Amino acid sequence: MRERGLFITFEGIDGAGKTTQVKRLASALEAAGVDVVCTREPGGTKLGDEIRALLLSRDNQTMTPRTEALLYAASRAQHVEEVILPSLEAGKVVLCDRFVDASIAYQGGGLGLGEQAVARLNEFAVNGVIPDVTILFELPVEDARKRLCQSRGTSQLDRIEARDAAYFSRVQAIFAKLAEREQERIHAVDARLPVDALEQEIYHIVWKYIRIPKNLER
Amino acid sequence: MRERGLFITFEGIDGAGKTTQVKRLASALEAAGVDVVCTREPGGTKLGDEIRALLLSRDNQTMTPRTEALLYAASRAQHVEEVILPSLEAGKVVLCDRFVDASIAYQGGGLGLGEQAVARLNEFAVNGVIPDVTILFELPVEDARKRLCQSRGTSQLDRIEARDAAYFSRVQAIFAKLAEREQERIHAVDARLPVDALEQEIYHIVWKYIRIPKNLER
Repeated sequence: MRERGLFITFEGIDGAGKTTQVKRLASALEAAGVDVVCTREPGGTKLGDEIRALLLSRDNQTMTPRTEALLYAASRAQHVEEVILPSLEAGKVVLCDRFVDASIAYQGGGLGLGEQAVARLNEFAVNGVIPDVTILFELPVEDARKRLCQSRGTSQLDRIEARDAAYFSRVQAIFAKLAEREQERIHAVDARLPVDALEQEIYHIVWKYIRIPKNLER
Repeated sequence: MRERGLFITFEGIDGAGKTTQVKRLASALEAAGVDVVCTREPGGTKLGDEIRALLLSRDNQTMTPRTEALLYAASRAQHVEEVILPSLEAGKVVLCDRFVDASIAYQGGGLGLGEQAVARLNEFAVNGVIPDVTILFELPVEDARKRLCQSRGTSQLDRIEARDAAYFSRVQAIFAKLAEREQERIHAVDARLPVDALEQEIYHIVWKYIRIPKNLER
């Protein structure tokens, strides 16, 4: 039987530079001969992209917090079964921009639904598929907001990105708490580092997991 | 403080004649001076109708069972907060075509996700809003299929309706189990009765709840 692949997720508030680094890591791993699948949430499937459109549209301002959490979980359930699990079973390395931690932080913490309630909901959605490694991008909220507005302009922010700084501070506090609680899985990186230096650091973290055969780990 | 209204749901497999009876009951109650809100699931809100379109489209054949359960719950969360709860708080009688029991039967039983898992998911979605009365339409699966195909033609069935008889037998078995377990809330009616007779029966069941002031009940 082929060995199961490696599931790596990338987390942190909007504007921390995840997307750039996921692309760079994918290129570097591919250059090293690793079979990589690059994906993101919400979305990652045709149906997931339709759910993503509902979630991010600024037309949907009346969406309730519970609806939002359930739609993220619905997109995720489809993504896990259609993309992530088959890729892992084929022995690939899956890089996923956002996963369950994001829901716990954004909907559980940011919207005040509670971390446990959102975690339980997502246990149902992912059906046992959890990340092997998570890279958490740490950056002061004001820096992240500045980057986001510079790169896209305030009027281009989606429904979630357009929330206020207090919201993102709550989100970030939950990310920090999760990192504290799950030190083996979650590796925090300083998103203020120059892009190349950050790329190096992430590559080194990830490479350890790829190099060491699973059965010899720890 | 105004007294909370009455929340009545209608359940049973497709083709049992719920929609006709909900309309008739609404007219009868309105004629008796009752303030009625008539709604349905999935849907009942603008966002819910967009989720409904995803759920029922025959294009979405790759939708996974967990995604389906989560989308129903997402539509429901929006419906509860935007329509059902405000109507109940305004003292109205809410008639809702399908609610949580349908998810427990269709996704929990029919798709095999398990009744408890789907019930828990929906506890999150409805946040404490549960029906006061449920009318369960009972009808042999073959009769329901016949009615449905006669009224719409096989090619017009939606993604869920197009499932096979074995699926609907599983769904019906769960409805029967729920009715057995919650005899105070769930009132089963024989959907093979002539339409007028069935209307009378449902009216009598519901009228008892409307007539008796809540604080004198039981």
